[in-house]
Amino acid sequence: MTTPDAPTTNMWAEIEQQPAALRATLDALLPRIPEVAALTTTTRQVLFIARGTSDNAAVYGSYLAQVRAGRLATLASPSVATTYRARLDLSGVLAVALSQSGRTEEIVQTMAWAADCGARTLAVTNGPGSPLATQADVALVTEAGIERAVPATKTFTTQLAALAVLGIALNADEEGNPPIDAGELRAVPDEIERLLADYAEPTDLSPLIEGLAAVEGAVVSGRGYAYSAALEFALKLKEACYLHAMGLSFADLLHGPIAVVDQRTPAVIMAADSGPTVEGAVALAHRVTESGAPAYGIGGGAALAAECAYALPGPRLPEWLAPIGLIIAGQLLTEALARRLDLDPDHPRGLSKVTQTS
Amino acid sequence: MTTPDAPTTNMWAEIEQQPAALRATLDALLPRIPEVAALTTTTRQVLFIARGTSDNAAVYGSYLAQVRAGRLATLASPSVATTYRARLDLSGVLAVALSQSGRTEEIVQTMAWAADCGARTLAVTNGPGSPLATQADVALVTEAGIERAVPATKTFTTQLAALAVLGIALNADEEGNPPIDAGELRAVPDEIERLLADYAEPTDLSPLIEGLAAVEGAVVSGRGYAYSAALEFALKLKEACYLHAMGLSFADLLHGPIAVVDQRTPAVIMAADSGPTVEGAVALAHRVTESGAPAYGIGGGAALAAECAYALPGPRLPEWLAPIGLIIAGQLLTEALARRLDLDPDHPRGLSKVTQTS
Repeated sequence: MTTPDAPTTNMWAEIEQQPAALRATLDALLPRIPEVAALTTTTRQVLFIARGTSDNAAVYGSYLAQVRAGRLATLASPSVATTYRARLDLSGVLAVALSQSGRTEEIVQTMAWAADCGARTLAVTNGPGSPLATQADVALVTEAGIERAVPATKTFTTQLAALAVLGIALNADEEGNPPIDAGELRAVPDEIERLLADYAEPTDLSPLIEGLAAVEGAVVSGRGYAYSAALEFALKLKEACYLHAMGLSFADLLHGPIAVVDQRTPAVIMAADSGPTVEGAVALAHRVTESGAPAYGIGGGAALAAECAYALPGPRLPEWLAPIGLIIAGQLLTEALARRLDLDPDHPRGLSKVTQTS
Repeated sequence: MTTPDAPTTNMWAEIEQQPAALRATLDALLPRIPEVAALTTTTRQVLFIARGTSDNAAVYGSYLAQVRAGRLATLASPSVATTYRARLDLSGVLAVALSQSGRTEEIVQTMAWAADCGARTLAVTNGPGSPLATQADVALVTEAGIERAVPATKTFTTQLAALAVLGIALNADEEGNPPIDAGELRAVPDEIERLLADYAEPTDLSPLIEGLAAVEGAVVSGRGYAYSAALEFALKLKEACYLHAMGLSFADLLHGPIAVVDQRTPAVIMAADSGPTVEGAVALAHRVTESGAPAYGIGGGAALAAECAYALPGPRLPEWLAPIGLIIAGQLLTEALARRLDLDPDHPRGLSKVTQTS
């Protein structure tokens, strides 16, 4: 949807590249379901190893593994491996390591540690030939192409697509679970394309941009699958807009942090249009609005929009794939808000593209 | 250390009651190590079930289980059980459910679900006779007494003490791990008493209180065991002071959110005085200070203090027990900051003592 006055940032261009990046990734990875299923057949649970944006993708993977494939899923604490050098019994565990570059040492080391402890390993990375890709038992390499903006966009949504492929493979192995329809996943790139066009026109993002430009902090909340999109939007707002953005699940928010929500601290609530989390999203928006704070919605259908000061339509996707679409609004809002605040979304202060931690 | 001008809030009184609450809890629970060890002997990993403050205690438990007892530890997503009603194979899993009241329905339901999926169950609660205590295979009931202030203080540190008892029991079962010295745990109440006296005089908390009173948001960071104390301090600041407080591990902070740190967004860095996380704490403080933002330290010894604008001494405890002492400063700072901001720390807006979520 490039128009004469389209933004000129790399981040904006990379947001727009997502339908193509998702198509290329699914074309590459869907045929590999049998290979992934063969790897996972000897495992009974999943350990995700990631940091930052990749960790938010891992949160998505953890719901998918548990809800759709009946496998207990754990988010690893890499310091258990790298700082404390603990020895765990990881036999029967599938370790899934995620890193955009495939070169973050902490993640490469933790995956090696997991293998050493008896785990089978799967890498999800945009870096073909990277240490993560070459050292894993199986590597799912996403086809996002080069990402120049520091805030990850297309490398995040293609990670989610790779995890959806993993979810189908894990599910194929479990007789008790209802089968997952790969056709629903194949339809995602077209829906992202439609959504991007809708957000360009007629949907108006500016009330939400102005609402966030007027405050120093915000809560971003989601539940279940959509929790990953809420965490990722909060991370984007922190890194590119320097907003005090707190990503919380609905329930975590109600266990204390809800006190922080007020006129100067709005809540952004994200939900799929259908599924068992919609009711909680609507109730949360109602409570936020009643407390006198602005509630903004992304997705959640008409019911959520009715309880919000302003709401953006979400993707027309089944709940298990909705995060791939829900984050699109978060990406566009972050990019536009950064420019609105006279910041360069491509180059946040103090950050570089590959983060090394140990 | 009650003085003529001591604060009159319940929260302050309950902070001061912690040495006695910890002594009573350890007297009750240390003799039960053989019973807990017998329960855990058939399990190979741990699933923690909790929300809010109890979830921050669970983070401590997860490091203890992994680093000291060689068991993979997972923080449960309760919605997998309560919203999605997924069916997992939890044979060989010890499910540890934590709730101050023992009556939070979501936690009671998720523990019942775990048992149904094949897990053995352990409750950690301050509510004797509560559903959580009566329905678990084994219940570790803390002896914190009635807690009137909404922000949890003594129920949090006694939960940590109960988890330390669990850590010793888990460790007793593992031949490969160095044995844990229960004497170190027994010494904790005296050290907390000394620390409270030190924070009353000569240590001056006011530079940190004034530093936080001047800003809308802050980052609170810790790593490993101390990460739990950082998350809990951030939660306290959100719920009682309405500060945009973001709790992050050192590594998570460097993967993006570090951009948010600036003159108006200080970083509070928490670390034990010894152990493998001190080096990272010092490096993080150096980076924050170099960026022009205030770095405040809690613990971390002289090396961390040297890199900070202001630092409070931490507890004289080994790293694995340090969180019980590190949070004391966080509690005192929260209580004093709330009053400094003309807020009532005992009754944050929108919160009640037992939170029901589903």
